[in-house]
Amino acid sequence: MTHSALGTARRADARHNVARILRAAVTCLGRDPAASMNDIAREAGVGRVTVYAHYPSREALVEAAMVHVLAEGDEVLATVDLTGDPRDGLRALIEAGWMLLAQSTSVLEAALAALPPGRVQDLHAGPEQRIHDLVRRGQALGVFRTDLPARWLASVLHHLLHGAVADVAAGRLDPADAPRYLSAVTLAAYGATGA
Amino acid sequence: MTHSALGTARRADARHNVARILRAAVTCLGRDPAASMNDIAREAGVGRVTVYAHYPSREALVEAAMVHVLAEGDEVLATVDLTGDPRDGLRALIEAGWMLLAQSTSVLEAALAALPPGRVQDLHAGPEQRIHDLVRRGQALGVFRTDLPARWLASVLHHLLHGAVADVAAGRLDPADAPRYLSAVTLAAYGATGA
Repeated sequence: MTHSALGTARRADARHNVARILRAAVTCLGRDPAASMNDIAREAGVGRVTVYAHYPSREALVEAAMVHVLAEGDEVLATVDLTGDPRDGLRALIEAGWMLLAQSTSVLEAALAALPPGRVQDLHAGPEQRIHDLVRRGQALGVFRTDLPARWLASVLHHLLHGAVADVAAGRLDPADAPRYLSAVTLAAYGATGA
Repeated sequence: MTHSALGTARRADARHNVARILRAAVTCLGRDPAASMNDIAREAGVGRVTVYAHYPSREALVEAAMVHVLAEGDEVLATVDLTGDPRDGLRALIEAGWMLLAQSTSVLEAALAALPPGRVQDLHAGPEQRIHDLVRRGQALGVFRTDLPARWLASVLHHLLHGAVADVAAGRLDPADAPRYLSAVTLAAYGATGA
């Protein structure tokens, strides 16, 4: 192998390891939000040293796992049609967002515990932007209220979605009811006409 | 001193120490949610051993501080008149609840970080019950929607209040706007007639 071919192979190896570690982190944290670096290394089939070579701390790895889950979620949200009636778009976004959240509750819990306050919401900038854009379009079309800023209305849905996850975890809310309950209060909170 | 007088004096000392430690915990955690047992002992003017004699772990002391703050808050909420129009009651409860939350954000943050998931919301059973009772009365009077359970509607306000605290902390919401924004979306979410 030439010097540069060796470099290319090493970089491919590193990418391969990163992918394995991230998949293992999502699996382990999904089972147990307190999963350790050792648990994740074992699941990935790599040594601890390899994990630390890519992620210098558990916090860094948990954040990377959260970013990975959000990127996958973003691909799903990108398929939701938001071009029609904003009220239907909101219902569809809530339905899809709820499914994604329900699948990633445990990774989210790990991230909330391991990352500095506010960091998890900052990482949600992508989904937040989708909601924000939809709210603004609904306001422009006159189907959502305009007496409150779009930013606050978008934040309302964020808080309700994450609050509903906590309610389900605490046994206070049946997950089967959640999307309908969320849509009902969010559409009303947005002052949706004809909802 | 007789044996029993000595016992009485010791118990009075212990009560006095507990009160000092709790006040110091609220002060220290209010300044810094990561305040240590040492910081709190120093603020209380007692030794570490005395703190540990009453609270075997930082988690136990943070929980006691949260309970103390909630009990003080409950005294304030008890003065809010909830006997008139439930819509006015809701606005008054949001206003008072917001003030209390804004004053105790840092203790709340410490509790969220130190206590097991769900514990902080469990400790809020008192304020939750006030909201729940108000929602049920509003439903019975026909001024709040009845197509969703009172429990979920009460939960909605809980999530929005705590979400707004996070928004303020992250610089996404002006605290001066918060009570009005919260009342506007909550009344709408509750389907309040004539709101």
